[in-house]
Amino acid sequence: MAAEPPFAPPGDKDALEQGAGLTPRFGPDGLIAAVATDAETGEVLMLAWMNDEALRLTLETGEAHYWSRSRRALWRKGATSGQIQTVVEARIDCDQDAVWLKVKVGGDGGACHTGARSCFYRVIEGDRLARR
Amino acid sequence: MAAEPPFAPPGDKDALEQGAGLTPRFGPDGLIAAVATDAETGEVLMLAWMNDEALRLTLETGEAHYWSRSRRALWRKGATSGQIQTVVEARIDCDQDAVWLKVKVGGDGGACHTGARSCFYRVIEGDRLARR
Repeated sequence: MAAEPPFAPPGDKDALEQGAGLTPRFGPDGLIAAVATDAETGEVLMLAWMNDEALRLTLETGEAHYWSRSRRALWRKGATSGQIQTVVEARIDCDQDAVWLKVKVGGDGGACHTGARSCFYRVIEGDRLARR
Repeated sequence: MAAEPPFAPPGDKDALEQGAGLTPRFGPDGLIAAVATDAETGEVLMLAWMNDEALRLTLETGEAHYWSRSRRALWRKGATSGQIQTVVEARIDCDQDAVWLKVKVGGDGGACHTGARSCFYRVIEGDRLARR
């Protein structure tokens, strides 16, 4: 299957920061960082990665898609767990190399494969971690 | 100057996810992703990168330090702008390859070098960006 046309290429600093065109900057590995927060509570649920196809599908379908670096595969979040992330709002940062999704989570409302609601279920205290 | 001892090396999946030891997983480039949110409003302010020294300094001093990929330099956030980020809480995710800082922002309360409060000042609408 032929790939969809990619996003428009990034422009100069001014275009990136002040422009009205979406020109995401994927890294050398072809990925862009994406942070998902709960649209209702604001809690950070997860930080994951998208390739151009994952970002395109996220924007087209309104459901978060990511690229699994460990599995090296496109991943529709919640496809097996039911924890579908419906995108309420998608933002991009100043230099267009990070995405922020505000999402409504389906299924049991969680986002982490461990069963926790958020992947960030531990607080750093010195060199120790406390679960809370 | 001799480097400080690094963090303890990551253990297996169970230790990473369920353990009480901080063993951050830096990428092949030596960096870990860090998202900073406003401790009061919950707004995502920025997504940046830390090397081991930046993370160590952040945890030791209680002020956010990052690694600038473009300048290839350690960076104490706010050192010139006054937008110091005082860490109210630091969290790490399930597989210990991402950090979430809840911060109180000094100076004018902003986080973005463009003057915006958050780096995520544009909403994605199709292939266009709207500032709001």
